[in-house]
Amino acid sequence: MSESELIPPRRRALEHLLSRLGFKDAALLAQLRWDLLDQALIHPSLDSQRNNDRLELLGDSVLRILATEFLFESYPDLSVGELTAIRSDLISDAHLAELADLHGLERYLELGSSSQKDLAGRDRRLADAFEALLGSFYLSWGIHTLPNLHPWLDPYLRRRVEEWFQDPTRRNPKAALQELTQRLWGELPEYRLVAAEEHPPHFTVEVWGNGRCWGRGEGRSKKAAEMAAAAVAYGQLHSEEA
Amino acid sequence: MSESELIPPRRRALEHLLSRLGFKDAALLAQLRWDLLDQALIHPSLDSQRNNDRLELLGDSVLRILATEFLFESYPDLSVGELTAIRSDLISDAHLAELADLHGLERYLELGSSSQKDLAGRDRRLADAFEALLGSFYLSWGIHTLPNLHPWLDPYLRRRVEEWFQDPTRRNPKAALQELTQRLWGELPEYRLVAAEEHPPHFTVEVWGNGRCWGRGEGRSKKAAEMAAAAVAYGQLHSEEA
Repeated sequence: MSESELIPPRRRALEHLLSRLGFKDAALLAQLRWDLLDQALIHPSLDSQRNNDRLELLGDSVLRILATEFLFESYPDLSVGELTAIRSDLISDAHLAELADLHGLERYLELGSSSQKDLAGRDRRLADAFEALLGSFYLSWGIHTLPNLHPWLDPYLRRRVEEWFQDPTRRNPKAALQELTQRLWGELPEYRLVAAEEHPPHFTVEVWGNGRCWGRGEGRSKKAAEMAAAAVAYGQLHSEEA
Repeated sequence: MSESELIPPRRRALEHLLSRLGFKDAALLAQLRWDLLDQALIHPSLDSQRNNDRLELLGDSVLRILATEFLFESYPDLSVGELTAIRSDLISDAHLAELADLHGLERYLELGSSSQKDLAGRDRRLADAFEALLGSFYLSWGIHTLPNLHPWLDPYLRRRVEEWFQDPTRRNPKAALQELTQRLWGELPEYRLVAAEEHPPHFTVEVWGNGRCWGRGEGRSKKAAEMAAAAVAYGQLHSEEA
Protein backbone atom coordinates (compact mmCIF):
# COMPACT_ATOMS: atom_id res chain seq x y z
CA MET A 1 0.00 0.00 0.00
CA SER A 2 1.48 3.32 -0.97
CA GLU A 3 1.16 6.47 1.04
CA SER A 4 -1.26 8.06 -1.38
CA GLU A 5 -3.78 5.30 -0.72
CA LEU A 6 -4.35 6.22 2.94
CA ILE A 7 -7.88 7.49 3.17
CA PRO A 8 -8.03 11.14 4.23
CA PRO A 9 -9.73 10.64 7.65
CA ARG A 10 -7.09 8.08 8.65
CA ARG A 11 -4.30 10.31 7.41
CA ARG A 12 -5.69 13.21 9.45
CA ALA A 13 -6.02 10.99 12.52
CA LEU A 14 -2.40 9.90 12.19
CA GLU A 15 -1.26 13.49 11.74
CA HIS A 16 -3.09 14.28 14.94
CA LEU A 17 -1.35 11.39 16.72
CA LEU A 18 2.09 12.59 15.57
CA SER A 19 1.32 16.03 16.85
CA ARG A 20 0.19 14.59 20.22
CA LEU A 21 3.42 12.59 20.39
CA GLY A 22 5.29 15.87 19.91
CA PHE A 23 6.73 15.35 16.44
CA LYS A 24 6.19 18.67 14.71
CA ASP A 25 9.38 19.17 12.72
CA ALA A 26 8.35 19.53 9.09
CA ALA A 27 11.49 17.91 7.69
CA LEU A 28 10.94 14.88 9.94
CA LEU A 29 7.27 14.59 9.03
CA ALA A 30 8.14 14.82 5.33
CA GLN A 31 10.30 11.72 5.72
CA LEU A 32 7.67 9.75 7.63
CA ARG A 33 6.33 6.60 6.00
CA TRP A 34 2.66 7.20 6.73
CA ASP A 35 1.71 3.83 5.24
CA LEU A 36 3.95 2.10 7.80
CA LEU A 37 2.67 4.24 10.65
CA ASP A 38 -0.84 3.22 9.60
CA GLN A 39 0.22 -0.45 9.50
CA ALA A 40 1.80 -0.18 12.97
CA LEU A 41 -1.66 0.62 14.28
CA ILE A 42 -3.48 -2.34 12.73
CA HIS A 43 -3.84 -5.29 15.09
CA PRO A 44 -3.59 -8.81 13.58
CA SER A 45 -7.16 -9.49 14.70
CA LEU A 46 -8.36 -7.00 12.05
CA ASP A 47 -6.22 -8.17 9.15
CA SER A 48 -4.14 -11.33 9.13
CA GLN A 49 -2.00 -10.02 6.24
CA ARG A 50 -1.46 -6.29 6.62
CA ASN A 51 -0.95 -5.73 10.33
CA ASN A 52 1.68 -4.70 12.86
CA ASP A 53 3.29 -8.04 13.71
CA ARG A 54 6.49 -7.58 11.66
CA LEU A 55 6.87 -3.94 12.69
CA GLU A 56 6.53 -5.05 16.30
CA LEU A 57 9.38 -7.54 15.85
CA LEU A 58 11.54 -4.74 14.43
CA GLY A 59 10.41 -2.25 17.07
CA ASP A 60 11.32 -4.65 19.86
CA SER A 61 14.99 -4.45 18.76
CA VAL A 62 14.77 -0.71 18.27
CA LEU A 63 13.33 -0.17 21.74
CA ARG A 64 15.96 -2.39 23.30
CA ILE A 65 18.85 -0.44 21.79
CA LEU A 66 17.20 2.90 22.65
CA ALA A 67 16.66 1.83 26.28
CA THR A 68 20.19 0.42 26.53
CA GLU A 69 21.75 3.57 25.06
CA PHE A 70 19.74 5.64 27.51
CA LEU A 71 20.79 3.58 30.54
CA PHE A 72 24.48 3.48 29.56
CA GLU A 73 24.58 7.21 28.94
CA SER A 74 22.39 8.45 31.80
CA TYR A 75 23.26 5.95 34.54
CA PRO A 76 26.89 4.98 33.98
CA ASP A 77 27.32 3.73 37.55
CA LEU A 78 24.63 1.07 37.70
CA SER A 79 25.70 -2.51 38.35
CA VAL A 80 25.07 -5.07 35.66
CA GLY A 81 22.34 -6.63 37.84
CA GLU A 82 20.53 -3.30 38.15
CA LEU A 83 20.97 -2.60 34.44
CA THR A 84 19.45 -5.97 33.57
CA ALA A 85 16.49 -5.57 35.92
CA ILE A 86 15.78 -1.98 34.92
CA ARG A 87 16.03 -2.70 31.22
CA SER A 88 13.55 -5.58 31.62
CA ASP A 89 11.21 -3.17 33.34
CA LEU A 90 11.62 -0.46 30.69
CA ILE A 91 10.79 -2.85 27.87
CA SER A 92 7.98 -4.64 29.74
CA ASP A 93 4.43 -4.75 28.37
CA ALA A 94 3.24 -2.95 31.51
CA HIS A 95 5.51 0.02 30.87
CA LEU A 96 4.89 0.16 27.13
CA ALA A 97 1.11 0.02 27.67
CA GLU A 98 1.50 2.92 30.10
CA LEU A 99 3.40 4.93 27.48
CA ALA A 100 0.77 4.04 24.89
CA ASP A 101 -1.98 5.25 27.23
CA LEU A 102 -0.12 8.44 27.97
CA HIS A 103 -0.39 9.28 24.28
CA GLY A 104 -3.93 7.97 23.80
CA LEU A 105 -2.71 5.33 21.35
CA GLU A 106 -5.76 3.11 21.79
CA ARG A 107 -8.08 5.33 19.79
CA TYR A 108 -5.77 5.01 16.75
CA LEU A 109 -5.40 1.23 16.98
CA GLU A 110 -7.64 -0.70 14.61
CA LEU A 111 -8.89 -4.01 16.04
CA GLY A 112 -10.98 -6.94 14.90
CA SER A 113 -14.24 -7.53 16.74
CA SER A 114 -12.86 -10.52 18.69
CA SER A 115 -10.12 -8.39 20.22
CA GLN A 116 -12.44 -5.53 21.10
CA LYS A 117 -14.01 -7.75 23.76
CA ASP A 118 -10.68 -9.11 25.02
CA LEU A 119 -10.05 -6.64 27.82
CA ALA A 120 -7.39 -8.79 29.46
CA GLY A 121 -5.28 -8.61 26.30
CA ARG A 122 -5.33 -4.82 26.28
CA ASP A 123 -1.87 -4.21 27.76
CA ARG A 124 -0.25 -6.63 25.34
CA ARG A 125 -2.05 -5.06 22.36
CA LEU A 126 -1.01 -1.55 23.34
CA ALA A 127 2.57 -2.62 24.08
CA ASP A 128 2.77 -4.37 20.70
CA ALA A 129 1.39 -1.29 18.96
CA PHE A 130 3.89 0.94 20.74
CA GLU A 131 6.76 -1.30 19.61
CA ALA A 132 5.36 -1.35 16.07
CA LEU A 133 5.22 2.45 16.16
CA LEU A 134 8.94 2.49 16.97
CA GLY A 135 9.46 0.02 14.12
CA SER A 136 7.72 2.39 11.69
CA PHE A 137 9.81 5.31 12.99
CA TYR A 138 12.95 3.25 12.46
CA LEU A 139 12.01 2.55 8.83
CA SER A 140 11.25 6.25 8.30
CA TRP A 141 14.06 7.92 10.21
CA GLY A 142 16.51 5.29 11.36
CA ILE A 143 20.09 4.80 10.29
CA HIS A 144 22.43 1.89 10.86
CA THR A 145 24.00 2.23 14.27
CA LEU A 146 27.15 0.46 13.10
CA PRO A 147 27.28 0.85 9.32
CA ASN A 148 30.78 -0.54 9.04
CA LEU A 149 29.83 -3.73 10.90
CA HIS A 150 27.28 -4.98 8.39
CA PRO A 151 29.78 -5.82 5.63
CA TRP A 152 31.69 -7.86 8.18
CA LEU A 153 28.85 -9.57 10.09
CA ASP A 154 26.19 -10.05 7.40
CA PRO A 155 27.93 -12.85 5.47
CA TYR A 156 28.09 -14.94 8.69
CA LEU A 157 24.44 -14.21 9.43
CA ARG A 158 23.51 -15.11 5.86
CA ARG A 159 25.32 -18.42 6.09
CA ARG A 160 23.48 -19.28 9.31
CA VAL A 161 20.11 -18.34 7.79
CA GLU A 162 20.81 -20.55 4.77
CA GLU A 163 21.68 -23.43 7.13
CA TRP A 164 18.46 -22.79 9.02
CA PHE A 165 16.46 -23.11 5.83
CA GLN A 166 18.12 -26.38 4.97
CA ASP A 167 17.58 -27.96 8.39
CA PRO A 168 14.14 -29.58 8.74
CA THR A 169 14.39 -29.74 12.55
CA ARG A 170 14.80 -25.97 12.72
CA ARG A 171 12.09 -25.18 10.23
CA ASN A 172 9.61 -27.66 11.61
CA PRO A 173 10.74 -29.44 14.78
CA LYS A 174 7.38 -31.14 15.34
CA ALA A 175 7.43 -32.81 11.93
CA ALA A 176 11.07 -33.83 12.35
CA LEU A 177 10.41 -35.31 15.80
CA GLN A 178 7.35 -37.20 14.59
CA GLU A 179 9.35 -38.78 11.80
CA LEU A 180 12.06 -39.79 14.27
CA THR A 181 9.74 -41.32 16.92
CA GLN A 182 7.84 -43.23 14.27
CA ARG A 183 11.04 -44.67 12.92
CA LEU A 184 12.41 -45.53 16.37
CA TRP A 185 9.30 -46.77 18.18
CA GLY A 186 6.51 -46.75 15.63
CA GLU A 187 4.59 -44.16 17.65
CA LEU A 188 3.79 -40.46 17.60
CA PRO A 189 5.21 -38.10 20.25
CA GLU A 190 2.69 -37.06 22.91
CA TYR A 191 2.47 -33.38 23.91
CA ARG A 192 1.35 -32.71 27.47
CA LEU A 193 0.35 -29.22 28.56
CA VAL A 194 1.84 -28.83 32.04
CA ALA A 195 1.19 -25.16 32.72
CA ALA A 196 -0.93 -22.48 31.10
CA GLU A 197 -1.29 -18.88 32.10
CA GLU A 198 -3.61 -16.57 30.24
CA HIS A 199 -2.48 -13.07 31.17
CA PRO A 200 0.09 -12.68 29.86
CA PRO A 201 -0.16 -15.89 27.83
CA HIS A 202 2.52 -18.38 28.83
CA PHE A 203 2.41 -22.11 28.13
CA THR A 204 4.66 -24.97 29.19
CA VAL A 205 4.52 -28.23 27.30
CA GLU A 206 6.33 -31.54 27.74
CA VAL A 207 6.81 -34.03 24.98
CA TRP A 208 6.74 -37.73 25.85
CA GLY A 209 7.58 -40.88 23.97
CA ASN A 210 8.52 -44.48 24.77
CA GLY A 211 7.56 -43.90 28.42
CA ARG A 212 9.64 -40.83 29.23
CA CYS A 213 9.76 -37.09 28.84
CA TRP A 214 12.22 -35.99 26.16
CA GLY A 215 11.83 -32.25 26.24
CA ARG A 216 10.04 -29.31 27.72
CA GLY A 217 9.26 -26.03 26.03
CA GLU A 218 7.67 -22.73 26.81
CA GLY A 219 6.06 -20.06 24.72
CA ARG A 220 3.43 -17.42 24.27
CA SER A 221 1.15 -19.93 22.59
CA LYS A 222 0.58 -23.67 22.99
CA LYS A 223 1.93 -24.18 19.49
CA ALA A 224 5.10 -22.20 20.20
CA ALA A 225 5.66 -24.20 23.41
CA GLU A 226 5.18 -27.47 21.49
CA MET A 227 7.64 -26.35 18.82
CA ALA A 228 10.21 -25.49 21.49
CA ALA A 229 9.65 -28.81 23.31
CA ALA A 230 9.92 -30.73 20.04
CA ALA A 231 13.22 -29.02 19.20
CA VAL A 232 14.68 -30.01 22.60
CA ALA A 233 13.36 -33.56 22.33
CA TYR A 234 14.69 -33.96 18.80
CA GLY A 235 18.16 -32.88 19.90
CA GLN A 236 18.03 -35.20 22.91
CA LEU A 237 16.83 -38.23 20.98
CA HIS A 238 19.19 -37.59 18.11
CA SER A 239 22.22 -37.42 20.41
CA GLU A 240 21.19 -40.57 22.36
CA GLU A 241 20.65 -42.42 19.14
CA ALA A 242 24.01 -41.37 17.71
CA MET B 1 41.84 2.34 32.59
CA SER B 2 43.04 4.45 29.72
CA GLU B 3 44.27 3.13 26.45
CA SER B 4 47.88 3.96 27.19
CA GLU B 5 47.88 1.58 30.14
CA LEU B 6 47.38 -1.56 28.02
CA ILE B 7 50.57 -3.55 28.31
CA PRO B 8 52.32 -3.91 24.96
CA PRO B 9 51.92 -7.70 24.55
CA ARG B 10 48.16 -7.44 25.15
CA ARG B 11 47.89 -4.51 22.78
CA ARG B 12 49.74 -6.48 20.10
CA ALA B 13 47.50 -9.50 20.70
CA LEU B 14 44.39 -7.36 20.28
CA GLU B 15 45.78 -5.78 17.11
CA HIS B 16 46.31 -9.27 15.80
CA LEU B 17 42.71 -10.17 16.69
CA LEU B 18 41.36 -7.12 14.87
CA SER B 19 43.36 -8.04 11.83
CA ARG B 20 42.02 -11.62 11.99
CA LEU B 21 38.49 -10.24 12.23
CA GLY B 22 39.19 -8.29 9.05
CA PHE B 23 39.23 -4.74 10.42
CA LYS B 24 42.19 -3.14 8.69
CA ASP B 25 40.95 0.35 7.89
CA ALA B 26 43.35 2.78 9.60
CA ALA B 27 40.70 5.43 10.29
CA LEU B 28 38.50 2.83 11.95
CA LEU B 29 41.34 1.43 14.04
CA ALA B 30 42.31 4.94 15.14
CA GLN B 31 38.83 5.37 16.62
CA LEU B 32 38.85 2.01 18.41
CA ARG B 33 38.65 2.09 22.20
CA TRP B 34 41.37 -0.49 22.85
CA ASP B 35 40.72 -0.38 26.61
CA LEU B 36 37.12 -1.45 26.00
CA LEU B 37 38.15 -4.12 23.52
CA ASP B 38 40.50 -5.44 26.21
CA GLN B 39 37.72 -5.34 28.80
CA ALA B 40 35.35 -7.20 26.44
CA LEU B 41 37.78 -10.09 26.58
CA ILE B 42 38.02 -10.35 30.37
CA HIS B 43 35.69 -12.93 31.87
CA PRO B 44 34.09 -12.12 35.26
CA SER B 45 35.86 -15.18 36.74
CA LEU B 46 39.18 -13.32 36.37
CA ASP B 47 38.11 -9.95 37.74
CA SER B 48 34.81 -9.25 39.48
CA GLN B 49 35.16 -5.49 38.84
CA ARG B 50 36.73 -4.90 35.45
CA ASN B 51 35.22 -7.50 33.16
CA ASN B 52 32.90 -7.91 30.19
CA ASP B 53 29.51 -8.21 31.88
CA ARG B 54 28.27 -4.67 31.14
CA LEU B 55 29.66 -4.70 27.60
CA GLU B 56 27.84 -7.99 27.05
CA LEU B 57 24.55 -6.40 28.14
CA LEU B 58 25.14 -3.60 25.65
CA GLY B 59 26.34 -5.96 22.93
CA ASP B 60 23.21 -8.07 23.28
CA SER B 61 21.10 -5.08 22.15
CA VAL B 62 23.58 -4.21 19.42
CA LEU B 63 23.56 -7.74 18.04
CA ARG B 64 19.78 -7.87 18.11
CA ILE B 65 19.40 -4.70 16.05
CA LEU B 66 22.15 -5.78 13.62
CA ALA B 67 20.50 -9.18 13.12
CA THR B 68 17.05 -7.63 12.75
CA GLU B 69 18.30 -5.04 10.23
CA PHE B 70 19.95 -7.83 8.28
CA LEU B 71 16.83 -10.00 8.21
CA PHE B 72 14.48 -7.14 7.24
CA GLU B 73 16.78 -5.97 4.47
CA SER B 74 17.94 -9.31 3.09
CA TYR B 75 14.82 -11.44 3.57
CA PRO B 76 11.87 -9.09 3.15
CA ASP B 77 9.44 -11.91 2.42
CA LEU B 78 9.79 -13.99 5.57
CA SER B 79 6.74 -14.49 7.75
CA VAL B 80 6.80 -13.10 11.25
CA GLY B 81 7.03 -16.66 12.63
CA GLU B 82 10.10 -17.39 10.51
CA LEU B 83 11.67 -14.04 11.40
CA THR B 84 11.18 -14.76 15.11
CA ALA B 85 12.61 -18.26 14.92
CA ILE B 86 15.56 -17.29 12.73
CA ARG B 87 16.44 -14.26 14.84
CA SER B 88 16.43 -16.46 17.97
CA ASP B 89 18.82 -18.79 16.19
CA LEU B 90 21.11 -15.97 15.00
CA ILE B 91 21.47 -14.57 18.52
CA SER B 92 21.73 -17.96 20.24
CA ASP B 93 24.76 -18.88 22.35
CA ALA B 94 25.40 -21.79 19.98
CA HIS B 95 25.71 -19.51 16.97
CA LEU B 96 27.73 -16.83 18.74
CA ALA B 97 30.14 -19.43 20.12
CA GLU B 98 30.55 -20.71 16.56
CA LEU B 99 31.36 -17.18 15.33
CA ALA B 100 33.78 -16.74 18.23
CA ASP B 101 35.52 -19.99 17.31
CA LEU B 102 35.69 -19.02 13.66
CA HIS B 103 37.85 -16.06 14.71
CA GLY B 104 39.81 -17.90 17.40
CA LEU B 105 38.42 -15.65 20.11
CA GLU B 106 39.19 -18.10 22.91
CA ARG B 107 42.91 -17.43 22.90
CA TYR B 108 42.27 -13.72 23.58
CA LEU B 109 39.76 -14.31 26.40
CA GLU B 110 41.21 -13.97 29.89
CA LEU B 111 39.69 -16.35 32.42
CA GLY B 112 39.96 -17.10 36.11
CA SER B 113 41.26 -20.54 37.07
CA SER B 114 37.80 -21.80 38.09
CA SER B 115 36.42 -21.14 34.61
CA GLN B 116 39.38 -22.70 32.84
CA LYS B 117 38.19 -26.09 34.09
CA ASP B 118 34.53 -25.44 33.31
CA LEU B 119 34.35 -26.95 29.85
CA ALA B 120 30.55 -27.11 29.84
CA GLY B 121 30.41 -23.33 30.22
CA ARG B 122 32.60 -22.75 27.19
CA ASP B 123 29.87 -21.87 24.68
CA ARG B 124 28.26 -19.39 27.04
CA ARG B 125 31.64 -17.76 27.80
CA LEU B 126 32.49 -17.40 24.12
CA ALA B 127 29.02 -16.14 23.24
CA ASP B 128 29.20 -13.57 26.06
CA ALA B 129 32.65 -12.45 24.87
CA PHE B 130 31.41 -12.11 21.31
CA GLU B 131 28.51 -9.93 22.47
CA ALA B 132 30.88 -7.87 24.62
CA LEU B 133 33.12 -7.41 21.58
CA LEU B 134 30.13 -5.95 19.71
CA GLY B 135 29.46 -3.75 22.75
CA SER B 136 33.02 -2.39 22.59
CA PHE B 137 32.66 -1.79 18.83
CA TYR B 138 29.43 0.09 19.48
CA LEU B 139 31.14 2.37 22.00
CA SER B 140 34.01 2.94 19.55
CA TRP B 141 32.19 3.27 16.26
CA GLY B 142 28.45 3.31 16.90
CA ILE B 143 26.02 6.13 16.35
CA HIS B 144 22.45 6.53 17.54
CA THR B 145 20.19 4.71 15.16
CA LEU B 146 17.34 7.15 15.87
CA PRO B 147 18.97 10.34 17.13
CA ASN B 148 15.74 12.34 17.01
CA LEU B 149 13.89 9.80 19.13
CA HIS B 150 16.03 10.17 22.26
CA PRO B 151 14.84 13.68 23.17
CA TRP B 152 11.28 12.37 22.95
CA LEU B 153 11.61 8.96 24.61
CA ASP B 154 14.31 9.54 27.23
CA PRO B 155 12.23 11.64 29.65
CA TYR B 156 9.68 8.79 29.87
CA LEU B 157 12.40 6.24 30.39
CA ARG B 158 13.99 8.43 33.06
CA ARG B 159 10.71 8.74 34.94
CA ARG B 160 10.28 4.96 34.94
CA VAL B 161 13.85 4.41 36.16
CA GLU B 162 13.29 6.88 39.00
CA GLU B 163 10.09 5.02 39.93
CA TRP B 164 12.01 1.76 39.88
CA PHE B 165 14.54 3.14 42.32
CA GLN B 166 11.80 4.24 44.69
CA ASP B 167 9.93 0.94 44.65
CA PRO B 168 11.32 -1.58 47.16
CA THR B 169 9.52 -4.52 45.48
CA ARG B 170 11.32 -3.82 42.23
CA ARG B 171 14.71 -3.26 43.79
CA ASN B 172 14.46 -6.15 46.20
CA PRO B 173 11.36 -8.30 45.76
CA LYS B 174 12.55 -10.95 48.24
CA ALA B 175 12.89 -8.44 51.09
CA ALA B 176 9.54 -6.85 50.25
CA LEU B 177 7.79 -10.25 50.16
CA GLN B 178 9.36 -11.33 53.44
CA GLU B 179 8.11 -8.19 55.14
CA LEU B 180 4.61 -8.79 53.77
CA THR B 181 4.35 -12.48 54.75
CA GLN B 182 5.64 -11.75 58.22
CA ARG B 183 3.05 -9.07 58.66
CA LEU B 184 0.21 -11.20 57.28
CA TRP B 185 1.02 -14.61 58.72
CA GLY B 186 4.01 -14.17 60.97
CA GLU B 187 6.09 -16.46 58.77
CA LEU B 188 8.84 -16.30 56.14
CA PRO B 189 8.15 -17.25 52.53
CA GLU B 190 9.50 -20.64 51.53
CA TYR B 191 11.39 -21.01 48.23
CA ARG B 192 11.18 -24.41 46.57
CA LEU B 193 13.49 -25.29 43.69
CA VAL B 194 11.29 -27.18 41.24
CA ALA B 195 13.63 -27.51 38.26
CA ALA B 196 17.31 -26.99 37.68
CA GLU B 197 19.26 -27.42 34.48
CA GLU B 198 23.00 -26.88 34.37
CA HIS B 199 23.85 -26.42 30.71
CA PRO B 200 22.70 -23.85 29.95
CA PRO B 201 21.84 -22.86 33.52
CA HIS B 202 18.08 -22.55 34.00
CA PHE B 203 16.30 -22.64 37.34
CA THR B 204 12.63 -22.68 38.26
CA VAL B 205 11.58 -21.75 41.78
CA GLU B 206 8.20 -21.60 43.50
CA VAL B 207 7.49 -19.50 46.52
CA TRP B 208 5.07 -20.83 49.14
CA GLY B 209 3.39 -19.33 52.16
CA ASN B 210 0.31 -20.03 54.28
CA GLY B 211 -0.12 -23.40 52.59
CA ARG B 212 -0.16 -22.39 48.94
CA CYS B 213 2.10 -21.40 46.07
CA TRP B 214 2.01 -17.66 45.39
CA GLY B 215 4.42 -17.36 42.53
CA ARG B 216 6.82 -19.11 40.21
CA GLY B 217 9.94 -17.66 38.67
CA GLU B 218 12.69 -18.67 36.31
CA GLY B 219 16.20 -17.47 35.74
CA ARG B 220 19.77 -18.22 34.87
CA SER B 221 20.64 -18.56 38.57
CA LYS B 222 18.72 -19.80 41.61
CA LYS B 223 18.82 -16.30 43.02
CA ALA B 224 17.43 -14.74 39.85
CA ALA B 225 14.62 -17.33 39.81
CA GLU B 226 13.83 -16.57 43.47
CA MET B 227 13.74 -12.83 42.76
CA ALA B 228 11.36 -13.38 39.85
CA ALA B 229 9.13 -15.69 41.94
CA ALA B 230 9.11 -13.21 44.82
CA ALA B 231 8.06 -10.38 42.50
CA VAL B 232 5.11 -12.45 41.19
CA ALA B 233 4.12 -13.54 44.70
CA TYR B 234 4.33 -10.01 46.04
CA GLY B 235 2.03 -8.74 43.28
CA GLN B 236 -0.39 -11.60 43.85
CA LEU B 237 -0.53 -11.22 47.62
CA HIS B 238 -0.72 -7.47 47.40
CA SER B 239 -3.69 -7.56 45.05
CA GLU B 240 -5.55 -10.23 47.11
CA GLU B 241 -4.98 -8.23 50.23
CA ALA B 242 -6.22 -5.00 48.65
